[in-house]
Amino acid sequence: MDFSIRPELQAKLAAMREFINAELIPIEHSLSQKTWEEVAAEAAPLREKVKAKRWWAPNLPPEIGGTEASVLELGLISEQCGRTPLGHYVFGCQAPDAGNAELLFKHGSDEIKQQYLLPMARGEIRSCFSMTEPEFAGSNPVRLGTTAVLEGDEYVIDGRKWFTSSYDGSAFIILMAVTEPDAAPHARASMILVPSDAPGVEFVRNVSVMGHAGGGYASHAELRYTNVRVPASNLLGPPGGGFMLAQERLGPGRIHHCMRWLGICDRAFEMMLERAGTREVAEGKLLGSKQLVQAMIAESRAEIDAARLLVLHAAWSIDNEGFKDARAKVSAIKFHAANVLQNVVDRAIQLHGALGMTDDTVLSYWYREERAARIYDGPDEVHKVSLARQLLKPWFDKG
Amino acid sequence: MDFSIRPELQAKLAAMREFINAELIPIEHSLSQKTWEEVAAEAAPLREKVKAKRWWAPNLPPEIGGTEASVLELGLISEQCGRTPLGHYVFGCQAPDAGNAELLFKHGSDEIKQQYLLPMARGEIRSCFSMTEPEFAGSNPVRLGTTAVLEGDEYVIDGRKWFTSSYDGSAFIILMAVTEPDAAPHARASMILVPSDAPGVEFVRNVSVMGHAGGGYASHAELRYTNVRVPASNLLGPPGGGFMLAQERLGPGRIHHCMRWLGICDRAFEMMLERAGTREVAEGKLLGSKQLVQAMIAESRAEIDAARLLVLHAAWSIDNEGFKDARAKVSAIKFHAANVLQNVVDRAIQLHGALGMTDDTVLSYWYREERAARIYDGPDEVHKVSLARQLLKPWFDKG
Amino acid sequence: MDFSIRPELQAKLAAMREFINAELIPIEHSLSQKTWEEVAAEAAPLREKVKAKRWWAPNLPPEIGGTEASVLELGLISEQCGRTPLGHYVFGCQAPDAGNAELLFKHGSDEIKQQYLLPMARGEIRSCFSMTEPEFAGSNPVRLGTTAVLEGDEYVIDGRKWFTSSYDGSAFIILMAVTEPDAAPHARASMILVPSDAPGVEFVRNVSVMGHAGGGYASHAELRYTNVRVPASNLLGPPGGGFMLAQERLGPGRIHHCMRWLGICDRAFEMMLERAGTREVAEGKLLGSKQLVQAMIAESRAEIDAARLLVLHAAWSIDNEGFKDARAKVSAIKFHAANVLQNVVDRAIQLHGALGMTDDTVLSYWYREERAARIYDGPDEVHKVSLARQLLKPWFDKG
Amino acid sequence: MDFSIRPELQAKLAAMREFINAELIPIEHSLSQKTWEEVAAEAAPLREKVKAKRWWAPNLPPEIGGTEASVLELGLISEQCGRTPLGHYVFGCQAPDAGNAELLFKHGSDEIKQQYLLPMARGEIRSCFSMTEPEFAGSNPVRLGTTAVLEGDEYVIDGRKWFTSSYDGSAFIILMAVTEPDAAPHARASMILVPSDAPGVEFVRNVSVMGHAGGGYASHAELRYTNVRVPASNLLGPPGGGFMLAQERLGPGRIHHCMRWLGICDRAFEMMLERAGTREVAEGKLLGSKQLVQAMIAESRAEIDAARLLVLHAAWSIDNEGFKDARAKVSAIKFHAANVLQNVVDRAIQLHGALGMTDDTVLSYWYREERAARIYDGPDEVHKVSLARQLLKPWFDKG
Repeated sequence: MDFSIRPELQAKLAAMREFINAELIPIEHSLSQKTWEEVAAEAAPLREKVKAKRWWAPNLPPEIGGTEASVLELGLISEQCGRTPLGHYVFGCQAPDAGNAELLFKHGSDEIKQQYLLPMARGEIRSCFSMTEPEFAGSNPVRLGTTAVLEGDEYVIDGRKWFTSSYDGSAFIILMAVTEPDAAPHARASMILVPSDAPGVEFVRNVSVMGHAGGGYASHAELRYTNVRVPASNLLGPPGGGFMLAQERLGPGRIHHCMRWLGICDRAFEMMLERAGTREVAEGKLLGSKQLVQAMIAESRAEIDAARLLVLHAAWSIDNEGFKDARAKVSAIKFHAANVLQNVVDRAIQLHGALGMTDDTVLSYWYREERAARIYDGPDEVHKVSLARQLLKPWFDKG
Repeated sequence: MDFSIRPELQAKLAAMREFINAELIPIEHSLSQKTWEEVAAEAAPLREKVKAKRWWAPNLPPEIGGTEASVLELGLISEQCGRTPLGHYVFGCQAPDAGNAELLFKHGSDEIKQQYLLPMARGEIRSCFSMTEPEFAGSNPVRLGTTAVLEGDEYVIDGRKWFTSSYDGSAFIILMAVTEPDAAPHARASMILVPSDAPGVEFVRNVSVMGHAGGGYASHAELRYTNVRVPASNLLGPPGGGFMLAQERLGPGRIHHCMRWLGICDRAFEMMLERAGTREVAEGKLLGSKQLVQAMIAESRAEIDAARLLVLHAAWSIDNEGFKDARAKVSAIKFHAANVLQNVVDRAIQLHGALGMTDDTVLSYWYREERAARIYDGPDEVHKVSLARQLLKPWFDKG
Repeated sequence: MDFSIRPELQAKLAAMREFINAELIPIEHSLSQKTWEEVAAEAAPLREKVKAKRWWAPNLPPEIGGTEASVLELGLISEQCGRTPLGHYVFGCQAPDAGNAELLFKHGSDEIKQQYLLPMARGEIRSCFSMTEPEFAGSNPVRLGTTAVLEGDEYVIDGRKWFTSSYDGSAFIILMAVTEPDAAPHARASMILVPSDAPGVEFVRNVSVMGHAGGGYASHAELRYTNVRVPASNLLGPPGGGFMLAQERLGPGRIHHCMRWLGICDRAFEMMLERAGTREVAEGKLLGSKQLVQAMIAESRAEIDAARLLVLHAAWSIDNEGFKDARAKVSAIKFHAANVLQNVVDRAIQLHGALGMTDDTVLSYWYREERAARIYDGPDEVHKVSLARQLLKPWFDKG
Repeated sequence: MDFSIRPELQAKLAAMREFINAELIPIEHSLSQKTWEEVAAEAAPLREKVKAKRWWAPNLPPEIGGTEASVLELGLISEQCGRTPLGHYVFGCQAPDAGNAELLFKHGSDEIKQQYLLPMARGEIRSCFSMTEPEFAGSNPVRLGTTAVLEGDEYVIDGRKWFTSSYDGSAFIILMAVTEPDAAPHARASMILVPSDAPGVEFVRNVSVMGHAGGGYASHAELRYTNVRVPASNLLGPPGGGFMLAQERLGPGRIHHCMRWLGICDRAFEMMLERAGTREVAEGKLLGSKQLVQAMIAESRAEIDAARLLVLHAAWSIDNEGFKDARAKVSAIKFHAANVLQNVVDRAIQLHGALGMTDDTVLSYWYREERAARIYDGPDEVHKVSLARQLLKPWFDKG
C-alpha cells in the first residue's frame, strides 16, 4: 500500500488549487447574484486560461481536446474543482456535459461526433440529460412513462420530464425513453440524442429549486415531449441499452460527484478553521477555544479524511480491477460521502452563526444546493439496499 | 396530571386549523414568489377575517385589541399558525412585533403607547428589533459595540447592526445599545425606541439570507447608526435594563418559537404521510411500504410528540411556577426542539425526493429558512452549556 | 392540560424514593456479587417493610393484597423502583410476575387463583413466561414451534423455549404454545399454565447472558418440553386466545418497562451530575466545567424529560381513552424510550471514565443488562414498522 | 496511490486468517467460561504453532525472537488477530506486553533485557503497565499521585493504582511515578521497572469490570505501593522521561488497537451477514430481506471500510513520514475507529436479537469489554480536543 501521490500529479493539483483560489473563489458569489449569461461571460476567459495550462477536460481523450486522466486522478482533480461552485465548469468537466461527452465518444455516429461532441468538448455548446419524470419515482429508474416509438427511420417521442438540468441554453438532450416496452424491465429504455430545439420539445419551466428557478447552465427544466421526431441514427448504443450505457457512466460519474463533495468539504473545513481561529467570543477568547467547536472540527476532519480515502479506494479499484469488481465500493461511497458532505456543511454553518445563514459566504449556497446529493443518482436508501443485497448475495444464493 | 385540552380550546384550535388549511396554505407559495407588498395585500383581508373571528393578537391584552391567552394556550395557537409560513403574520402575533408590543405595553410611556403600540397592535405598522452586530459574536450577547450616549435629554446613538429583521418598511426599531459602559457586563445595555426613519439611521442593505435578500417583513437589514438622536424618554425600562427586559420576553418568546417549529413539524409530518401513502415506487407498491420510509415516519412521530410535550410542559411551568422556576426547562426546549425541527424537515425532503428540493412544496422553504432555528436566540451550544451549568450549580456551589 | 402530580401522590412518590435511596441502593451491588438465594434473603425484610408501608404490589387489586394504582400512577411508581435493579422485586411488582398475576386474576380458574395467584401476590412463589423460541424469530411472535395438543382433558406439550426468564426457582410457567394450528396466524397460540416441576419440563440451562448465567429470579432458562401433560383447565382464556391475552397485558406492561428505564435514566443522570460536580480533571478544575461534558448533561436532561412525558402521556391515554386508542402511542414509547435509555447510560459511563467500566457503580450493570431493552418485547425495528403502518393505514385504506 | 497489498503479505494474512478461523475461533468461548489458567493451557500449543509458522511477535525484532513488521503490516496483522479475543495473545503481540517489550528493548539495561525482555519475548513471562490512578482523572495523565523518591541507589515508591491490567500472574510491572515533582508537568513522571512480587506491592483486588473480576492475563488489578524499593537502574529512559517514552509507544500502539478493533468489526460484520442471510423471520423470508437490516449492513460496511483506510493511512504515515508528522492522523483514528467499533458491535447484536444478548456468540463479550475503547488511552473527548488544537495551532499562533 502506498498512500503517496506521485510528485508531478501532486504539483499539478497544487497549481490547480492555487489557480482556483486566486481566480475562481473571488468570483464565486456571481453564481447566486448574476444571471447565467453574466456568469458565463466572466467564466469564459478563465476557461481559456485552463486550456492554456493544459488542464481542460481531464475526463476526455486528447483526440477530442481533453487531457485524459485515470479515474483516480480525475477524482483528485474533481476534489480541487469542487472547492468552488464554478470549478468544474471552468475546467470543462461539468456534469452533465462530462458524462454526455463520454457517451457520444463511445456510442455516437461520426456525424453526431462532428456536430455535437467536438463543439461540446471545446466548450462551445452545452447539453443535458433528460431522465427523471415527475410521475415516476426516480428511486426506481426502470419505470419510465416517456416513449420513443420507431416509425420508419424516425423515433417519435412523447412524454414528460423534469430535472433536465441545464436544458436552458443547451444544444442537445440525451433522452432516456422506453423503446422496447415488451422487454425485461432493465432492457426497455434507450438513450436517444434530441436537439434541444426539435419541434415538439416544449419548455414548461425551469423548476424553482431551493428558492431559485435559475437559468442557463444553472437550471433544472421541466419539459414536455409531444410527437418529437428524430432520426433513428440518433440512438446511442443498442436499442434497449439505456441502462447498460447509464451503468457504464456510473462508476466514473460517482467518483466525480463524491470527490466534488469532498472538495466542498475541504473548503468548508478550511472556513471552519479560519472562523474558529479568528472569531472572538469574548475579550481575547477565540471561538476555537470552545470544546464544542473543537469537537465539530475534529469530527469533521476524521469524517472527511475517512470518506476521502473510501472514495479514492473505489476510484483506484475502477482503474485497477474494473467497474464490475468495484461495484459494491461505488455503492458505498454514494451515500457515505453525501452524508459526510451534509454534516460538514451543516457544522460549518453552525460555526459561522448568523453569517453562515447569509450569502456572504458560499456555505449557504452549498447547504441549499447540495442537499440534493442524498437524492439524485439514487437516494441514500436505494444505495444502502443495493449495497446490502450485493453483500448478502452469496448467502441468498445458497438459500 | 391531565393531558387533555379543555373542550372550548380544543374547538378553537380546530377552527383555527381549518381556517389555516382553507385560506392560508393555498397562498403560502406567495411568500417565495411575490414581493412583500403583494403578499401583504393578499394577507390583509385574511387578517380582517382573523379579527372578525376574535383570534387576533392572542399574545396581547384585550385593552389594546388582543385576545390574551396563557403561555400554554399561546403555544398551542402558535403551533397551528406555524403550519404555514404566513400563519403568525395573519394572526397578528408575528415576531418581532409580538415581543415588541409586550415590551411597549410594559415599559413604554403613554406617548409611545399612543404613537406606536396601538397602531402596531391593530396591525397598521410594523417594528423591528436591532441587537445582533456583525463584529461581535451573537452567542455572547453582553458584548455590543453600539453605544447610546446621553447628551442632555437625548440619546446619541452610533454603531452597526445586522439581522435587524423586518426593518424594511417598519415604523420603529427597538434598539439594544450600551448606555452604561462602566457597569457590570449584564447591566451595560439598554433598550431604546428609535423611529425607523430617524436621521442617521442608514439602511445598508437587506442581507441576502439563504439565497434571498427578501423585502418588507421578510427581510433582515444591515443598518448603520451615525449620530442618531432620540429623546431620552424613548428609553424602555431602566438604564442598563436591556438584558432584564430581554429576559422577561424570553420565556414566552421561546415557547412561541418552539411551538411554531412544532407546527412546521406537524405539517411536514402530514406531508410525509401523504407522500408515503400515495407515491408509487413500483407497480402497486407505495413508498410507505418501504421499511426505511416507515422508520423515518415512526421516528419523526415519536420525536415530534416528545418534543411537543416538553415544550408544553415548559409553557405550563411558566404559567404555573413562574419563569424563574421554569428557566432550565426553557433552556432545554430551545436546542431540543430546534434539532427535532431540522431532522423532521430533512426527512420530509428525503421522502419527497426531487420534489422535496423544489419550491413546489413548502418544505424547501423551511429547510432554508429554519436552519436559523439552531442559531438565533443563542446557538444550540450556548443553550446546552447554559442548561448544564444551571443543573450543576448545586454541585459547583458546594465545591 | 395540567402537568402537576396531585400532592398525596407526590408525597407518596417522595417517600418511596427516600426508602429506595436509604435501603435499596446500598445493597444494589449484591445482585452482581451474591447468589440469588443470598439476594432474596437480603430483600425479604425489605419486602415486609414495603408491605407495612402499604406500597406492596401497586399493580394488583386490593382483594388479592395489592395497592392498585392507575396506569399513570403505576408508571410513576415504576420510575422510582427503576432507580435500582432490585426496586420492582422489593415492591412486589417485578416482571414477569406482575403481568402473570394480572393474567391469572382475569383468566384463571378459582383453583388456579387459590393455588398460584394468591401465594404469588403475597410474594411467596414466583412464576415465569415461556414464549421465545431459539429457532423462531422473536420479532415475529406468531411463528411458534411449541405445540399443545388436546388429548382428552389434557394438553400434551412439546417444544423448545429459551429466555424463559426466572424459571429457575419458579412455581409455575405461563406457556405460549400452538393449540389451533389451522387457525389464522394470530389465533393459533394459547396461554397455558404449567407447573414448573411438571414431568417432561426439562431445564436445559440458564442461558449465559452478557457474561452471566445468573440464577433464581435473575436468570433466563432454556427449557425443553417433552410430552408434558397438564389439565385442560390450565388453559388461560379461550383456545387460540394467546395473542389477545398478550395484547391485553401489553399497554400497562409497556408503561411499566418504559418508566422503569426512565427510573434508570433518572439515577444515571443523578450520577452524571455528581461525577461532573465533584471530579477534578486538573487542579481546581471540575469535570463539569468542560463543554463536552456539559453537552452530555444537557442533551440527557432534555431527552429524558421529553421521553418521560411521552410515556406518561401514553399511560394517561390508556387510563382515559383505553388501550385501543392509545395503541400508536404505546408503539412509539417502546423504541423511543429504549434508545434514550441506551444513550443516557452510555453517556453516564463515558463521564465516569474507567470507573464507569467497573462494577463499583451500577452503570455497567445497566449497560449490559438493559441493552436488551431494544430487543425484547419486539426490537426497535418492529415497533417502528408497526407504528408507521398504523399511521399510514388511513392512506393505505384509501389506495 | 496504490491500495494493493503486496502478494506475499496478502498470502501471509490469508494464512493467518485461516489459522485463526480454524484453531482460535472454536475456542474463543473459553475466555468467558474458564479460568485464565485453563485458557492459557489451551493457548499454549497454539502459540507454539504460531512460532513454528514464523508469525510470532510481529512487533519485535528478530534478535529477540520476533518477526518484525512495519507499522502498516503490523496493523494488518493486528486486524486478523482482532477477529477473536485470544488472537493477539496467541500471536505473542498482546497488550501490554507488546509495548512493554518495545520499551525494554529500547531503554532497558542489559541485565533487564536478560532477566525480563528475553523470557517475555519468548512468551514465558508476562508483564503489566501501572499508570492509571483512581484518585486522578486518566484524561489528564500528567497528574499522578504515585511518587518514586531516589534514596541512595534505590527508588522508594508509594502510591495507589488501578487498571494495572494483567498484573495477576505477571513477572514485572512498568510503573509510571513522579520522580521529579518540581519539573514542568510533562517532565515529572518516569517509568520504572518493578518486580511484581517486590515487597510493598500490595494486590488489593482484581477490579470487577463489566461483571467480571477475571484473573491472570484477563484482569485489571488495583494495587497499593507502600515503601517499595527497587534499584535506581530499574529506571527506563531518563529521569522525568516517562511521557516521552509513552509518546514513543503511542503511534504504533494506537495502530495496534485501532486495527484490532477493525478486526472485531470485520468478524462482527461477517456474523451480521451470516445471520441476515440465514435467519428466517417468516416462512421463506430471510432477515436480510428487510430494509432496516439492509441499512445496518450497508452503513456498517461503509463505516468499517472508511475507518480502516483512515487507520492504514495513519500507519503508512508513521512508516513514511515519522510519528511527529503523523500525529494529527493518530489523534483522529483513536476516537473515529472506537466509535465505528461501538456502532458495528451494537448493530450486530441488534441483528442477532435475543441471541446477541447471550454468550452463545462472542458479540456480547465485545459489547462489554470494548466499551472501554472510547475511554482508555484517552477518552474520545480528549482526542477530539487534542486534534482540533493541533489543526487550529497555525491560527492560534497568528493571533
